[in-house]
Parts: sequence; structure tokens; C-alpha cells
Amino acid sequence: MGQRCLETCFSPALFEPDLHSGSVVVIIDILRATSAICTAFENGAASIIPVADVPEAKEYKNRGYQVAAERDGYVLDFADFGNSPFNFTREKVEGRTIVYSTTNGTGIIRMASSAYKIVIGSFLNISALVSWLISQERDVVLFCAGWKNRFNLEDTICAGAIAERLMETSLYSTICDSTKAALDLWSLAKSDLRGYIEKVAHRTRLRNKGLDDCIDFCMTPDFTKKIPVIENGILVSLTMPDTAVK
Amino acid sequence: MGQRCLETCFSPALFEPDLHSGSVVVIIDILRATSAICTAFENGAASIIPVADVPEAKEYKNRGYQVAAERDGYVLDFADFGNSPFNFTREKVEGRTIVYSTTNGTGIIRMASSAYKIVIGSFLNISALVSWLISQERDVVLFCAGWKNRFNLEDTICAGAIAERLMETSLYSTICDSTKAALDLWSLAKSDLRGYIEKVAHRTRLRNKGLDDCIDFCMTPDFTKKIPVIENGILVSLTMPDTAVK
Repeated sequence: MGQRCLETCFSPALFEPDLHSGSVVVIIDILRATSAICTAFENGAASIIPVADVPEAKEYKNRGYQVAAERDGYVLDFADFGNSPFNFTREKVEGRTIVYSTTNGTGIIRMASSAYKIVIGSFLNISALVSWLISQERDVVLFCAGWKNRFNLEDTICAGAIAERLMETSLYSTICDSTKAALDLWSLAKSDLRGYIEKVAHRTRLRNKGLDDCIDFCMTPDFTKKIPVIENGILVSLTMPDTAVK
Repeated sequence: MGQRCLETCFSPALFEPDLHSGSVVVIIDILRATSAICTAFENGAASIIPVADVPEAKEYKNRGYQVAAERDGYVLDFADFGNSPFNFTREKVEGRTIVYSTTNGTGIIRMASSAYKIVIGSFLNISALVSWLISQERDVVLFCAGWKNRFNLEDTICAGAIAERLMETSLYSTICDSTKAALDLWSLAKSDLRGYIEKVAHRTRLRNKGLDDCIDFCMTPDFTKKIPVIENGILVSLTMPDTAVK
């Protein structure tokens, strides 16, 4: 194919499914869902089943699954853990299928269901992700989960970081103002990522709930080479050959 | 009142009317609607009636009004002019009520109808607007019109420019990531505004239609001291006393 298009979407409220049916859609929700998913696969999870509602998650729990379920940052009482990446330890997840209750995430996966492929992005898997995206030879949409349908800075700068690497290959072009804004914001953030993240609204929300211990970790590039993708509604993990990951 | 809140909304698709019922909402659509409205009032327009659809605009035309009406940049055949600021000359608008057909703008005005006040913002009236906002002693929402519900850079950097001036007063605070992003993007754009605007998607769209002649003008700060506000569904113009405009 010729030049591939790169677009960025700042919120589920801005996603246009019809425009992206042939694209690879990268879901970005770094504080904390997509960072947790990358961590789970690095620690050996076999697969992750995203479910939308709490009763469904509970039913899986009753059937013996490990269940991650929280609302507004708090672990639900029946669940094994919430969505901090630190919960998804090797001890808990290795070789297992994890059920992950996420209203927002499930909605986004459904929205993007006409995409060519859906993949999970974060700083934790950025280099492997970028190599894999390039190997797909497809248009790419960076889909920021936002927060309650709102724009957020942390997902945007992660989108900017991914966009920068894709644009450097000269394989992609963009006429999308959101991508340009994400690139610009990333250019401001990258020299002091942890300093920049201090000002994002969700940093304050997590801190107020005592849930901000994982933020530094979520900013760590290349903790894993795993590439979580959706197959038949379930998250499984691909790994790029070592040679392909820079 | 205590500290006033400042928020920014990047697109009609992201606007949450219930949150902003007590706020002043600033509508920003600098290429070209809000720049054209500011120009019309500077050139003596008495008032501007925003209408949503073409048949309604046509009916006004039949009743003898001056009508501005275009779709996708092209002037409709029955209309007196489109929405380039250069169309709203003193000769055409002085002392008159203009009917302005704008699907997007009318929808936005309707969305924001529970606001304390709705005001029109652009670079052309930025200093007067900021002085007036400060005088209102209210929370402020900077509402970027975007383009077909999408994020756009030009309205965002104008929002950032307004936000910077409001934040400098120390009367306002923000926990809104969109405002922080707008401020950051403005910080990148302001040293070479015309250079920055070269890369925005709408610049290309207007250029392709030969409609980009007004872009430099739309970036001009303080062409006017007029402050267009909505009163009973119609745009009228306030003027700040000279002493209050820096």
C-alpha cells in the first residue's frame, strides 16, 4: 500500500466507527487499564476476557475465574483484584484466563469492533507495539479512552509518543489535528514525563484515593514486548520476534 | 465569589450542558464564524439572527433581510454573502440586522442555552473579551466549535490564548486537562502564530477551496472591542469602556 494514514481520537465521544473499519485501532488508557493489561500478559496471563457489567463479572467469579473488577478506582468486594498493574502479579495470573470488568473499556472495544484489528497500547509496550503496527501495513487510529468521555492528557501524550515513532518511519502521514496536537503535547512532555504527569487531572483523582502508587511504573517504556490484541472478543497476547523490537 | 473555574471543551460532542448552567460560555470558531461575527459588529451591524436551516434563512431573505449563508465554505445562491469576515463590510452591514445561517453554530448556541451568558470569542476581540469575562465574576467555559464535531487546532490555540490571560489574573483556577492542553499548545503556537496555523487541517481545506485569504486577518488580535453576546437567541454587541480594555 501507499502512505498509511494516522489518526488520533481523544475520547469515545469523538470516535467515528465507520471511518476506521479498515484500520488498526490502538486503545490507550494508561492510568490504569491498558498498563494493567500489558503487565498481566508480561506476567504470563493466558488471556483476558473483558466484560461490561458487574453481574457478569460476578458470574465468572462463581465459575472459578480470577476476576479484576473495580468502579471509580475501588476494588469490588467479590473481585480478586482491581486494575492497578501491581495487582497482576505472576503468582496470580500466570497461565490463567483473567476476567476484567471495565465498563469504559468494553464500550470502546465494542465501538471499534469494525476495525481490522484492535490492540492495546501503553508506554509499557511502546516499542513492541510500534514494530507490530508497522508490520501490519494498515492505517492506524490511536484511540484514547479519556475519562468519562472527556479528553485527558495522559492518554494523549502516550498517543503522541506512539505517533512520533510512527511518523519517523515516513510510512505514515496525517491530516488530523488531534494527531498534531498529541505530537506537540508529547514534545513538551517527553523531557520530563513524570513532571508533566504531575499536572494531569487524573493524577489528582488517583492521589486522593491513594491509588497513585503505580503512576511512575505506567510511564516506564518497554517493560514488556507483549502486544495484547482482541481476538473473538478476548484479549490474547502476541510477541514480536526479538530482532524486530528496537 | 471565590476562585472561578475555567474549563475548555474541544468539540460539541464533548459538551456537558448540565455542568455549565451557571457559567459564561465562550463560543470559539475562528475559521471563520466567530471572526466574521466580530467583524460584522465592528462594522456596525445592529444584530445578528442565527438560524439553523437553509429554508429559514431563505424566508428571511424574502422578507428583505441581509442573509449570510453557506455550506462547506460555499455561498448559497440566494444569500448576500458567506461567512468570510471580509464579506461583512460596513457598507453591507451598518445599522442592519443580519441573518446568519449556521448549522453548527446554531446547534452550539442551543446546547449552551442553560449557560449564564453566551459570548463570541476570537483573536479579533480577545482583549475586550477577557476584560468582559473578568467583569462577569463567573466560571468560564471555552467552547471550541471544532469541525464536524472533531477537535481542531485553531480553536484550541485561541482557547489557550484566552485561558492564558484569564489564568494570569489569578482569579481563575482549572483542573481541566483540556484547558491545560490548550495552554500548552498556545505556548508552542504563540511565537509564530501564522506559521503554526499553516499546519492545521482546516487551513488546507480552506486553501483547497480558495477560501483562505482571511486566515491572517483571523489571527489579528484586537481588531475590535466588540463583545457579541446572545440575548433572547439573537446576537447583539456590547462594548467595554475604553479604560477597561488593555
